[in-house]
Amino acid sequence: MSTLPATAFVPLQEAASQREIFEYVLGDTLLASSLYANIALAGLSILLFVWMARGLEDPRAKLIVAATLVVPVVSLASYTGLASGLTTGILEMPPGHPAVDGAYVTVGGAEGVVSLWGRYLTWALSTPAILLALGLLAGSNLTKLFTAIVFDIAMCVTGLAAALTTSSLALRWFWFGMSCTFFVVVLYVLLVEWPADAAETGTDDVFGTLKYLTVVMWLAYPVVWALGVEGLALLPVGVTSWAYSGLDIVAKYVFGFLVIRYVADEPASVTADAGYGATGGVAPADD
Amino acid sequence: MSTLPATAFVPLQEAASQREIFEYVLGDTLLASSLYANIALAGLSILLFVWMARGLEDPRAKLIVAATLVVPVVSLASYTGLASGLTTGILEMPPGHPAVDGAYVTVGGAEGVVSLWGRYLTWALSTPAILLALGLLAGSNLTKLFTAIVFDIAMCVTGLAAALTTSSLALRWFWFGMSCTFFVVVLYVLLVEWPADAAETGTDDVFGTLKYLTVVMWLAYPVVWALGVEGLALLPVGVTSWAYSGLDIVAKYVFGFLVIRYVADEPASVTADAGYGATGGVAPADD
Amino acid sequence: MSTLPATAFVPLQEAASQREIFEYVLGDTLLASSLYANIALAGLSILLFVWMARGLEDPRAKLIVAATLVVPVVSLASYTGLASGLTTGILEMPPGHPAVDGAYVTVGGAEGVVSLWGRYLTWALSTPAILLALGLLAGSNLTKLFTAIVFDIAMCVTGLAAALTTSSLALRWFWFGMSCTFFVVVLYVLLVEWPADAAETGTDDVFGTLKYLTVVMWLAYPVVWALGVEGLALLPVGVTSWAYSGLDIVAKYVFGFLVIRYVADEPASVTADAGYGATGGVAPADD
Repeated sequence: MSTLPATAFVPLQEAASQREIFEYVLGDTLLASSLYANIALAGLSILLFVWMARGLEDPRAKLIVAATLVVPVVSLASYTGLASGLTTGILEMPPGHPAVDGAYVTVGGAEGVVSLWGRYLTWALSTPAILLALGLLAGSNLTKLFTAIVFDIAMCVTGLAAALTTSSLALRWFWFGMSCTFFVVVLYVLLVEWPADAAETGTDDVFGTLKYLTVVMWLAYPVVWALGVEGLALLPVGVTSWAYSGLDIVAKYVFGFLVIRYVADEPASVTADAGYGATGGVAPADD
Repeated sequence: MSTLPATAFVPLQEAASQREIFEYVLGDTLLASSLYANIALAGLSILLFVWMARGLEDPRAKLIVAATLVVPVVSLASYTGLASGLTTGILEMPPGHPAVDGAYVTVGGAEGVVSLWGRYLTWALSTPAILLALGLLAGSNLTKLFTAIVFDIAMCVTGLAAALTTSSLALRWFWFGMSCTFFVVVLYVLLVEWPADAAETGTDDVFGTLKYLTVVMWLAYPVVWALGVEGLALLPVGVTSWAYSGLDIVAKYVFGFLVIRYVADEPASVTADAGYGATGGVAPADD
Repeated sequence: MSTLPATAFVPLQEAASQREIFEYVLGDTLLASSLYANIALAGLSILLFVWMARGLEDPRAKLIVAATLVVPVVSLASYTGLASGLTTGILEMPPGHPAVDGAYVTVGGAEGVVSLWGRYLTWALSTPAILLALGLLAGSNLTKLFTAIVFDIAMCVTGLAAALTTSSLALRWFWFGMSCTFFVVVLYVLLVEWPADAAETGTDDVFGTLKYLTVVMWLAYPVVWALGVEGLALLPVGVTSWAYSGLDIVAKYVFGFLVIRYVADEPASVTADAGYGATGGVAPADD
């Protein structure tokens, strides 16, 4: 609309284009491998899970499988988004952020930290699916499932906000603290509520394994955030990214494998009553 | 913050403003009519559907109507967003994209393809409502409804990512292939699972019609994407947009009309048992 | 990518950085207090609600509490987002908008209206939780809950679109009218459908109070929009923001307090049948 004479002094906010970020990622072998390896592993996990669950008949067991399958599906899209530059950005940190001295990169005229913020966005979609699978395995009631999932989403969204806040260092850590507080609610359901349900349902053996795997892995995510380029910047971007990618491999694909291996046998503890999940309003046909 | 002397060479990322896009759309009769016609039709469909369903009493029949009503409600907002320039952009395609030679436009200093990306975003909201209505009509259980809707949303979101990826031509088609793969799961539920449920529920007559209408229309969307300005660029932007708008008219408003015409009679196959959908915890009152 | 010689005339779209907006907010005492006061009140509400509900046992009563708790949780994140500048912007209004003469500010080179658009985004998350709590208190069936929540989300998203549309004054008010129309559906459920359910459930005393509180407060929000800087610009930005913040205090924290005070006694009208909300498929254990 308005044109400025070039002789004026103009403040410019330069941003790296998607293509420049895509090429930057490709040029950093450690960073690139942390993303492309997970695209491949997510794809293979989808194929493996579908194959493992191929003979399943029971609708409740199939719901657990469907929830589990969401995890690598979201992961495949998430890592493709990160690798393409669509959900990766170069963010200028607020004054006083430790990344300013050392972890800054220059990409296409933009100077800042490589932020793989798409991770936090997509965790808001994949982690509820993990909790749904765990809750169904444990035989949770609706209240506990609602509570765990709502606070989990709140944890992921505030984690995303922490990563995207560039105005104030104090607010970045305020978001981080908020996210961790919501995490405590999720941990409470995982460690106190659902184990009791699982014992009653008869799934305590597999639930115990999955609970420890999930709790230990999930506790490591905020630690990586705090130590990584977006937090204290003690780890460089490639190591930060591989730390998340490694956690994802265990917390998502190994987790899913264990769930589906258990469910594929259709043990009585996960199968349904007659009429389970029916959305029909008429009396069930007597076939 | 920082000011640059105008004598420096500065890389600039120019973007068209919302107002420039709004005016560009208004200036292209074919494109503008494809959007404004659907604003009018979505509005009329809402009024028609509410009027057709005015005497309905049964809660399950009313849930099917409510789900169906979501479709033109989302459409009304979606097309208003596209026409206003809020969810329309001028995107520079990656090198090698066929639109670079021929389908590029210049809007307010930005050069690229007119991308009506808001369509893909809002499909993630309207198509689950279509599947909810279809699943309830068929008498689907919860597992199949969850599976169809989750893979449908994954299909729409990865379609949106395909449209917004400007860093790599290969990644655009990788997203497209991912989206089509998720579509296969939706097709499986529509063509194999739900017809069997509908036969048992006694809604196979109307479900058969709606199934064919939905499958044929939905198959055309990725074809339009592949042939349109965002894919192989064989169709110009106005024709691409009208192709989607025409599909929407049949797959959304005609579809909705057929659903509500069937449900408005409250046939026994769609009505509820006593206590259907009750969220109360106390024993039902015996009135 | 491409560099332009500085002697060319370049159209520039200047935007305020997140940090500049954060600092602008801090510098306006009225505006800043409207945000930081709510961060504190939302945090205190969460602590108070958790403490009030500490002894609760019944799963249905706990679901109502969990839904109510979502409201200050979302509020805490929402106000932190506004204060940080993450979800606040400086928007140039379309020609003819009354804010152009008088309500414009200049922040970091950008000239426009201070838009706290994050409010509308987060209402799409908090208001469904309010309706869920109200619907469960009233003993609503699934159809009415679905209808109220879907039209409520449509109301919030189109309100967000109204705030973000800068291309046309007519379209801003078209969005506003659309949003108000969807609001009518929510009002119908609140004023006609749920009171009848509540009378049957035996919660009409508390529901009557909460209904009037909610309806009166919620009716004021669009009035503030219309009179505020984003509408007719009769109120300056600080007053507009405090009007919303004051409404939030009553419609969210006082509302939540009343809900939880009622539910904490676990009256028979809100507690559950045996097996309420069970997601397990096996027959309930007879303990």
